[in-house]
Amino acid sequence: MTSFPHSLLSGYRSFNSQRLPTEQARYRELSERGQAPEIMVIGCCDSRVSPEVIFDAGPGELFVLRNVANLVPVYAPDGAVHGVSAALEYAVQVLRVKHIVVLGHAQCGGIRAFVDKTEPLSPGDFIGKWMQMFETAAQGVDQAPQEPISQFLTRLEQAGVKRSLHNLMTFPCINVLVGRGKLQLHGAYFGVAEGSLSVLDHDSGEFREVTEAFAG
Amino acid sequence: MTSFPHSLLSGYRSFNSQRLPTEQARYRELSERGQAPEIMVIGCCDSRVSPEVIFDAGPGELFVLRNVANLVPVYAPDGAVHGVSAALEYAVQVLRVKHIVVLGHAQCGGIRAFVDKTEPLSPGDFIGKWMQMFETAAQGVDQAPQEPISQFLTRLEQAGVKRSLHNLMTFPCINVLVGRGKLQLHGAYFGVAEGSLSVLDHDSGEFREVTEAFAG
Amino acid sequence: MTSFPHSLLSGYRSFNSQRLPTEQARYRELSERGQAPEIMVIGCCDSRVSPEVIFDAGPGELFVLRNVANLVPVYAPDGAVHGVSAALEYAVQVLRVKHIVVLGHAQCGGIRAFVDKTEPLSPGDFIGKWMQMFETAAQGVDQAPQEPISQFLTRLEQAGVKRSLHNLMTFPCINVLVGRGKLQLHGAYFGVAEGSLSVLDHDSGEFREVTEAFAG
Amino acid sequence: MTSFPHSLLSGYRSFNSQRLPTEQARYRELSERGQAPEIMVIGCCDSRVSPEVIFDAGPGELFVLRNVANLVPVYAPDGAVHGVSAALEYAVQVLRVKHIVVLGHAQCGGIRAFVDKTEPLSPGDFIGKWMQMFETAAQGVDQAPQEPISQFLTRLEQAGVKRSLHNLMTFPCINVLVGRGKLQLHGAYFGVAEGSLSVLDHDSGEFREVTEAFAG
Repeated sequence: MTSFPHSLLSGYRSFNSQRLPTEQARYRELSERGQAPEIMVIGCCDSRVSPEVIFDAGPGELFVLRNVANLVPVYAPDGAVHGVSAALEYAVQVLRVKHIVVLGHAQCGGIRAFVDKTEPLSPGDFIGKWMQMFETAAQGVDQAPQEPISQFLTRLEQAGVKRSLHNLMTFPCINVLVGRGKLQLHGAYFGVAEGSLSVLDHDSGEFREVTEAFAG
Repeated sequence: MTSFPHSLLSGYRSFNSQRLPTEQARYRELSERGQAPEIMVIGCCDSRVSPEVIFDAGPGELFVLRNVANLVPVYAPDGAVHGVSAALEYAVQVLRVKHIVVLGHAQCGGIRAFVDKTEPLSPGDFIGKWMQMFETAAQGVDQAPQEPISQFLTRLEQAGVKRSLHNLMTFPCINVLVGRGKLQLHGAYFGVAEGSLSVLDHDSGEFREVTEAFAG
Repeated sequence: MTSFPHSLLSGYRSFNSQRLPTEQARYRELSERGQAPEIMVIGCCDSRVSPEVIFDAGPGELFVLRNVANLVPVYAPDGAVHGVSAALEYAVQVLRVKHIVVLGHAQCGGIRAFVDKTEPLSPGDFIGKWMQMFETAAQGVDQAPQEPISQFLTRLEQAGVKRSLHNLMTFPCINVLVGRGKLQLHGAYFGVAEGSLSVLDHDSGEFREVTEAFAG
Repeated sequence: MTSFPHSLLSGYRSFNSQRLPTEQARYRELSERGQAPEIMVIGCCDSRVSPEVIFDAGPGELFVLRNVANLVPVYAPDGAVHGVSAALEYAVQVLRVKHIVVLGHAQCGGIRAFVDKTEPLSPGDFIGKWMQMFETAAQGVDQAPQEPISQFLTRLEQAGVKRSLHNLMTFPCINVLVGRGKLQLHGAYFGVAEGSLSVLDHDSGEFREVTEAFAG
């Protein structure tokens, strides 16, 4: 047990002594009544992009799925194992969340690996196979002449959020609820360098930064 | 844009005005140098079990995969898409993390669905297919006569953490690094009601609660 | 057993009586914990260029591959036997080394054989086949009019180090780790006559001699 | 240049200030006359088993090939690239060494990977392909009932040395020179824990430890 990372034990002690006392009642209530979050966030595993931190969320608020590059596959009832689809099914049909937010971010390593066409790192080529899902997102998004790679990557990362939102709509249970106004889908993008948040404007198809004033 | 959940905008404003100022330099540095976390956490989507909250982690510290019931499949280089394996490949081979923590928790909805043998909620039966992975974890873990269901579920949840740890060892890149002491695997369990943390003691196979004194 | 070279037995006696006593604890520790070197050196078989001697390295410090002319092939996952690639895989994925140093040297016999276009010495023409790998290194490096052969050979030897570094980057596992700053590649060149060491400056592409002052 | 590992620069400074002054004349002579070692050592890349250290060898004494598990392939004039064979051709036909020593050692990671039947770590499975060469060495060497794994591994490691010696004899140039008494082949084994050296007695087929008295 002593081998458990010290930073985690130390972090838990901070949680236990500082944050938990103010939230103990909430945790107990959530334990007894069960969770009932209204929002699901689909984010990336990236260590710089924690949904609970960025949205300053308390216990019970966000049902969070995190995978490499915040990808959502197309609906496929083919009898195979689909981890993202299982989480969606649980969030939408069991928890009846009202919002699903796809949260992309800058400097995404998965998307960079896709652009660099990294050779397989293992016999399973797990990253490569996983990022193949990104191909439809990347279609039509080409690097412009003299466009800096960072700008191109940003456009790809944001296209990825839009594609995940598009793929969410291929799930019948989501499609029907969105159509009836019972469920809303949102896109967001976290700029790691500035700690900035942008939100997808469905009308214009653009991501717009949330300013202090706007956020107020 | 106005449809973006108010609670998230409000939460971001809190982050932006309170936490970000103290961490702005760190975010910028992480943007320029890239992430380099030493710890990967495999947790559940559950809204009550945020790794960053429980471990009071700052940006760049935890590479976090979250799926239903914190499951890890067996290594299968079969050319199919494997989201967990992709995240593992990235964490172990690209980021070279030194620790992988499987974080289970009380009142897990995925495991409850497994026990209740919930009928398919959709033609894809995504939860059902996903939780089939739990069958090997559940083998040999039977409800004792007069054992309260809550106690049985706890035992199942902890067996699930152990099974995920076992399956991690089927990945060659993990197996070989663990064998050489370059990578460590850990099991942890969050008790939602009390906000308690237990850590798996590999020798005894038991989860032991982290007390204030121990954590110090 | 008496046929075992006397010089080696005598040398072992020196090691055993002089160096081993001061390093016995280290050897035992390395035996129990396994090796964990942070540096891999790819050097030449040449009897004048021992990495452990030049870098005054103790047990456990350098993982050392030595072949004719310190060559690294291009990554080729073709199912064939590749000795250098096997050592790289072990160093990078199993030992997780942080540095790979390609150590070239003056008066390299392999490179001289390449320049002299030596006829095959055996039906296998093993040296010839092996040094074919050097052809891409030698491209564009031509002997200038009136350039002394020794100077031309030095330029070739240093071009060989650069080519080996270039080829290292064709290995996906190396490429991705270098890109993330988790692994560094270095070039070095040993001048046998003076016992001098030069280090490749990646910016200028030049080898610069390590002076006493600099090394301090 | 400043990124060059500090430990190597520091080590070079030690070499430059302490050992080089006493060997400067020897290095210069070796530079002018060329190397003329009488002994070739075929050793493992392992960081704990440096031939120059174990045999306290000076510049010009040992022509050293090092690969994973000190393996020698069977002679194969098939037009393919063979690194070990190239080094052998150079040592035997160009340098005319009088001795070839295969130096095995305890706790060999390559042999351990062979025994553990480690799954491929990369699409090239370079370690796996390389260690297939060990199969003939391992034939007939089975773990006895209740034999400790460490003892079994020692027997395998020593069988590997013998197999490499056997394979050396498949090279016509070596076979003929050994037959005429112009070249001798030797097996040795380094015990990392104690820093012990054992030498293969060709008559008995046993490795016998070199004691202080014997070494004298």
